[in-house]
Amino acid sequence: MSAFKESIINIAAICARQNVLNFIISPGSRSAPLTLALLRHSALTCRTIVDERSAAFIALGLAQQLGRPVGLVCTSGTATLNYGPAIAEAFYQRIPLLIFTADRPPEWIDQNDGQTIPQREMFGKLCRASFEMPVDDAHPDARWHAERIISQAINASLWPAPGPVHLNVPLREPLYPNAELKYNSDAKIISTVPPRQVLDNHDWDKLMIDWRSSSRRLIVAGMHPPNPKLAEYLRILQSDSNTAVVFDVTSSLYDALALHHSDMIFGTEDETVRRELMPDLLVSFGGPVVSKNLKLFLRKYKPKIHWYLDLAGQCIDTFQSMTHILPVSAEYFFERLVAHSPSLQRSGPGGGLADEAAAYCETWIRQEYRTRKSLEHFLKELPLCEFSAMYSILHHLPKYSHLQLGNSGIVRFASYLGLSETKGVKVNSNRGTSGIDGTLSTAVGAALATSKLTTAIIGDLAFFYDRNALWNSVVPKNLRVVVINNNGGGIFRILDGPGGLPELAQHFEVEHRLTAERTAADHGVSYFHCASVSDLEKQLPKFFGPQERAALLEVQTDKRVNSETFLKFKSIMKEG
Amino acid sequence: MSAFKESIINIAAICARQNVLNFIISPGSRSAPLTLALLRHSALTCRTIVDERSAAFIALGLAQQLGRPVGLVCTSGTATLNYGPAIAEAFYQRIPLLIFTADRPPEWIDQNDGQTIPQREMFGKLCRASFEMPVDDAHPDARWHAERIISQAINASLWPAPGPVHLNVPLREPLYPNAELKYNSDAKIISTVPPRQVLDNHDWDKLMIDWRSSSRRLIVAGMHPPNPKLAEYLRILQSDSNTAVVFDVTSSLYDALALHHSDMIFGTEDETVRRELMPDLLVSFGGPVVSKNLKLFLRKYKPKIHWYLDLAGQCIDTFQSMTHILPVSAEYFFERLVAHSPSLQRSGPGGGLADEAAAYCETWIRQEYRTRKSLEHFLKELPLCEFSAMYSILHHLPKYSHLQLGNSGIVRFASYLGLSETKGVKVNSNRGTSGIDGTLSTAVGAALATSKLTTAIIGDLAFFYDRNALWNSVVPKNLRVVVINNNGGGIFRILDGPGGLPELAQHFEVEHRLTAERTAADHGVSYFHCASVSDLEKQLPKFFGPQERAALLEVQTDKRVNSETFLKFKSIMKEG
Repeated sequence: MSAFKESIINIAAICARQNVLNFIISPGSRSAPLTLALLRHSALTCRTIVDERSAAFIALGLAQQLGRPVGLVCTSGTATLNYGPAIAEAFYQRIPLLIFTADRPPEWIDQNDGQTIPQREMFGKLCRASFEMPVDDAHPDARWHAERIISQAINASLWPAPGPVHLNVPLREPLYPNAELKYNSDAKIISTVPPRQVLDNHDWDKLMIDWRSSSRRLIVAGMHPPNPKLAEYLRILQSDSNTAVVFDVTSSLYDALALHHSDMIFGTEDETVRRELMPDLLVSFGGPVVSKNLKLFLRKYKPKIHWYLDLAGQCIDTFQSMTHILPVSAEYFFERLVAHSPSLQRSGPGGGLADEAAAYCETWIRQEYRTRKSLEHFLKELPLCEFSAMYSILHHLPKYSHLQLGNSGIVRFASYLGLSETKGVKVNSNRGTSGIDGTLSTAVGAALATSKLTTAIIGDLAFFYDRNALWNSVVPKNLRVVVINNNGGGIFRILDGPGGLPELAQHFEVEHRLTAERTAADHGVSYFHCASVSDLEKQLPKFFGPQERAALLEVQTDKRVNSETFLKFKSIMKEG
Repeated sequence: MSAFKESIINIAAICARQNVLNFIISPGSRSAPLTLALLRHSALTCRTIVDERSAAFIALGLAQQLGRPVGLVCTSGTATLNYGPAIAEAFYQRIPLLIFTADRPPEWIDQNDGQTIPQREMFGKLCRASFEMPVDDAHPDARWHAERIISQAINASLWPAPGPVHLNVPLREPLYPNAELKYNSDAKIISTVPPRQVLDNHDWDKLMIDWRSSSRRLIVAGMHPPNPKLAEYLRILQSDSNTAVVFDVTSSLYDALALHHSDMIFGTEDETVRRELMPDLLVSFGGPVVSKNLKLFLRKYKPKIHWYLDLAGQCIDTFQSMTHILPVSAEYFFERLVAHSPSLQRSGPGGGLADEAAAYCETWIRQEYRTRKSLEHFLKELPLCEFSAMYSILHHLPKYSHLQLGNSGIVRFASYLGLSETKGVKVNSNRGTSGIDGTLSTAVGAALATSKLTTAIIGDLAFFYDRNALWNSVVPKNLRVVVINNNGGGIFRILDGPGGLPELAQHFEVEHRLTAERTAADHGVSYFHCASVSDLEKQLPKFFGPQERAALLEVQTDKRVNSETFLKFKSIMKEG
């Protein structure tokens, strides 16, 4: 006779065997049986975080870096709803999470007893799948059901697309054990072996007819983890096959030839540039694209053909130009393309077409070069502002370190600046849904997965919104947080539209005079502060150096200077 | 030609005419048209809160006190999901909220564009109703639809039961106006006239047969706002008709005769007391009941008949003994009962039955008196601990002021202590779902609705969890926050079960050494601190006195002293 239901203890045993080894647990009584089963299993690493909103983003950051599902455990009631924002972000960023919500037994729902809300399938379309564990497991079929569900959930969090999966776990009292927990090493496991998805020769040949007859070929890489092989294929396609390859700021596929400045290139008002860069064949892959100007360009100057590579085969027509969904990996697709390149070149665009392709690619490279020059000129001798701060910080980022870009203004500045300076840096950003709500927690989670320096760059509103990220004992010393403080939501001065509103300062920016200093002190984080470019340049090497604990650098900017600088940048960009 | 869609501007005009006058708005670009329409309407009061989780609980506190719907406005994406916890609490506490979530047009869902998630009906069963505004309103039928929806939403937030209602508002660009907003005073309004729900004489007479033949009659009042008439009917029923009336700690229906100590009475191990107090007829009304011991008692010692009064007629069988749902108001029901009392007494329990009724009611009063004495004795000369702190604070609460009781340990201590000391104090507590997640924000919202002193008593975990409640410019000077700091989740030492776990301190209590001082300083809140009973007694009068700004009192307790005191209390309670 064990302490709890066998099916609850089995969750720990099955997760351990299926390589789901990390759990972020929030304290609670209803969840105690599952919490204890996980805590006491020697193969599992459990971390305790009180605020469930933060806990879920920490799990997301951890899973984002590990590429394996991370488990979340919370008690019943509103605790569960605090997971909502991170679940949405995980869904769109395709990050595997296993969300265990403890629940009262179903007969107690809506009976005015504490911490009881309808939890079955509560996350709706934001989960890849939703399951409910049987409340009683005395019958052998119920035990089969309980064990099967854990496998189903793990499998569904990874294939056909990674994402969050919800397991609701109704639990009866007693909630605390009166005996030792015994893990069952025979618990049943069902594994999905993910298939390799390839294209038939017949279909491939048809695609290649279009490839060969297109002379203005553009590849757009959205959010993507580092992948040296893939980066090499793309380099070859640009250098040998005259195919322009544009990298979004969140695409960690660096290469010397890469085109990083689409956001600035298409900020120009010169329609000639747009017409010159209009593709006839577009291939896109990866996650969302930050560059708004690139999106607006492609939506207006539509390619004739647009292939979207997505293993999950979803219809995500970001550029409103999609003609084919290719449910294969980018690595497979571009490897095959490169393998065919010699023949493509032989039988491909010859004569006029080949010249056109070379000219098109050359135009892209020329525009990239021109933009980079104009940006470098603009950045010279700027006063301390968001732009110059971002530039300095990106410039000083240690090579091969990890970067978490905050949403709103931060990621836009990075997109304008491009990340060509930061070779080898792994970039992540919560661009699945682009909320500011959990960026700091995500960085904490990401830092936990690596010994590499992990730097979060975020705005002041995002910092205070998510300051509970630091309210725990897990914040690691390889975490660096840069808060660019402009005393409010500076984004509203950058956007076209709200700039002149009388309501701007109070109801959009939400002006404040807070600094992060006391929060850092409360949570044992080293605090750096700077208010000039030279100060910033002086502090950055020390800030990025080894530290005994996590460190926070607050860069105090002036919103008037920020907005003047941005106007200047915009006029430079518009001139093209 | 107006600046935006007419149907968006009409939302402000219709709300103003329908007495929905308060809005809590979180900044965002997609929501800008609605935000501006509301901000610019002279009849509406709009407050801006950045953290949507906090914003929603502030709206909940405000609506809880006003008894009118309060509007929430946020931008699209994960911002909306941060409303989840407060929506659940509002649903179960039956508080009217109108939740406006800005959205992208439906064709942009799942297209990897920023801040876009499936928002239609996203709050599922946690809303009384869900609507989506038409994205285009050029057709007259679409305008009729748009106007009708606003009325439907307001009506559904109030009847048949108050609660949250979701309005998803897809908006196309431009999002900022290029002309003055013109409010349409002719926008169509449809009002629901809530019916008076009464019982037919035929049914009433049948109920009265049971009433008259029952000699052990018990009334249980759950969470309920103050209502002097209702309190008087209940007093009469107890004094003239020998019906015991038990008040939950969250029931603001004070009376000198009231029985406040059920939680302590049923903490006894003496089964005789339970048998003596077992009712044969139970009438219950109001919201959830805090007293766990009362719930356990009634679930075991079930009455033969249990009438549950609920205007919405829901099947909420908290005591597992319900026999009749009476969809009428408590005021109506008890007024009618009192009016019939003379005839009830004449034709009612005569002879033996009348004597039994008197004896039953007398037993309750005797137990109440005995418990109160034993509690007073216990409270004498306690060191500073959660129990003595709660007692002192409740004792010093200004008469007729407002109280917000935190969840977890706080509300349990209040339930053991009873609120007989605090006559005229209006009590609220987030007992709809009993989460700790938004208690401070709820108090901020509640304080905004009144000039009366509003005191929140919360634990340290609840304080840090929800500290963003203070991150805004609206925190009023009539707010008092008492943080009883026991350096972690003290509840786990009170519960039966977790006390002896090796995982207790790290994974359940989540020990920490934080104080609220720096947070108070960051947000311009006066800070009081005390660490002894005499210190506390000295500070309370000043703390509750007039202040130029909101004030926070941190009571530092020692968890060992807390747990020793609680063990002592439990042994006293068990002895009975």
